[in-house]
Amino acid sequence: MATVAVQSFVSAPLQVPKVTQFKIGICQLKVTTEKSANIFNARSMIQAAAEQGASLILLPEMWNCPYSTDLFAKFAEDFSDIDSAPSLLMLSEVASSLGVTIIGGSIPEKDAGQLYNSCPVFGPNGELKAKHRKIHLFDMGKPLPGEVQFKESDNISAGEKPTVVDTDCGRIGIGICHDIRFPELAMSYSARGAHLVCYPGAFNMSTGATLWELEQRTRAVDNQVIPCYFMMIVLYVFMWYLAPCCEAC
Amino acid sequence: MATVAVQSFVSAPLQVPKVTQFKIGICQLKVTTEKSANIFNARSMIQAAAEQGASLILLPEMWNCPYSTDLFAKFAEDFSDIDSAPSLLMLSEVASSLGVTIIGGSIPEKDAGQLYNSCPVFGPNGELKAKHRKIHLFDMGKPLPGEVQFKESDNISAGEKPTVVDTDCGRIGIGICHDIRFPELAMSYSARGAHLVCYPGAFNMSTGATLWELEQRTRAVDNQVIPCYFMMIVLYVFMWYLAPCCEAC
Repeated sequence: MATVAVQSFVSAPLQVPKVTQFKIGICQLKVTTEKSANIFNARSMIQAAAEQGASLILLPEMWNCPYSTDLFAKFAEDFSDIDSAPSLLMLSEVASSLGVTIIGGSIPEKDAGQLYNSCPVFGPNGELKAKHRKIHLFDMGKPLPGEVQFKESDNISAGEKPTVVDTDCGRIGIGICHDIRFPELAMSYSARGAHLVCYPGAFNMSTGATLWELEQRTRAVDNQVIPCYFMMIVLYVFMWYLAPCCEAC
Repeated sequence: MATVAVQSFVSAPLQVPKVTQFKIGICQLKVTTEKSANIFNARSMIQAAAEQGASLILLPEMWNCPYSTDLFAKFAEDFSDIDSAPSLLMLSEVASSLGVTIIGGSIPEKDAGQLYNSCPVFGPNGELKAKHRKIHLFDMGKPLPGEVQFKESDNISAGEKPTVVDTDCGRIGIGICHDIRFPELAMSYSARGAHLVCYPGAFNMSTGATLWELEQRTRAVDNQVIPCYFMMIVLYVFMWYLAPCCEAC
């Protein structure tokens, strides 16, 4: 059904695409243990965002799967075989039927015996335009008593490349959650002429909110990107805090 | 009197010096049009900080001179001839007599027909251990009606090198004011093993406070530097907001 045409960082054309005013829909999902329910919910929210005028729609990190390292393998999909990947198939279908660009948060990706935390990007014709594998996995140190413990690298392999993709909504750099902690990634996207830098994320209250408030503001300021008409903005998508769809631009 | 031994970024030894617990004195000065008064005030505050137990004492940007581009030449001093440079001579003398390390904010430096915005660092024996020339000059764009206008590069030449200096209080990276806006400088200092990164600064209310609150927090977080015992911190010194001497460590 959908064709696979993954664009690498290196091959992104230097001619930066035009940007026009558009509305961004940022979807937050309450993930369940039922993959089919997660897919249904995501599709419903994407449709709601499009009905409110969004032409660029974003999902959060690991939206098809509970954020638990022991479940990633069970929920993983093969990006090279979209017809057998129900989460990717839905994104391709809904992007095409609604004519929107989707930054598909992330889902577990399986490839050659490895798992990755990967973000698919679909264009309005249903094409998989890019995928970004999370580069900086989130391994917490020794937790404080009563705090959450998490070591993503127990099950997930790290991506090795930045990802820039040219879309109908401009040039977009992709990071996933903890990727935002490393300024050099956003700096490289800015240097590549990105109009937007999107970080689908999922975090908990003990490690996330204060850091994210700081980091997303900083990535915008440090890269001279101002959240305003036609200018570059740093976007972030996370699970619990944003309204289902907000006008960001 | 004082010897000149300026240490460059390149020649900083890879063996990182030890750090022990110490108190930092951050001095804020209200600058006048009288250079001698500014020197007297700075010396008084350095002495007050030392009397409160500070062994590392910091001054703000352009502490000997009103922050006006047309006055920089008049107040400038030659770092290669400290005996004829009253601001530097005072810093050398007071560092030696009190046995403290001084990050001497900045003063206008004259060298070979050029002016620089330069930070001297004096050790407890009165030695000029390093100087940092401000790399990122502050040129404002077209101001809004009623806003301040400022173009530092009208009179000042930009420095070309990062500055790391090993002191009795640990390895210190130096930036001056607008240098904080560029994450790569602090990242390079962190990579060089700096325990502290100090940014003497001077800003006005229309361009400064909000940005500085963000930037100093971010430089600390992004470089894994936590304001805590014996750990790296990002310090900033500015004119109007901090108490004359505060215990930062």
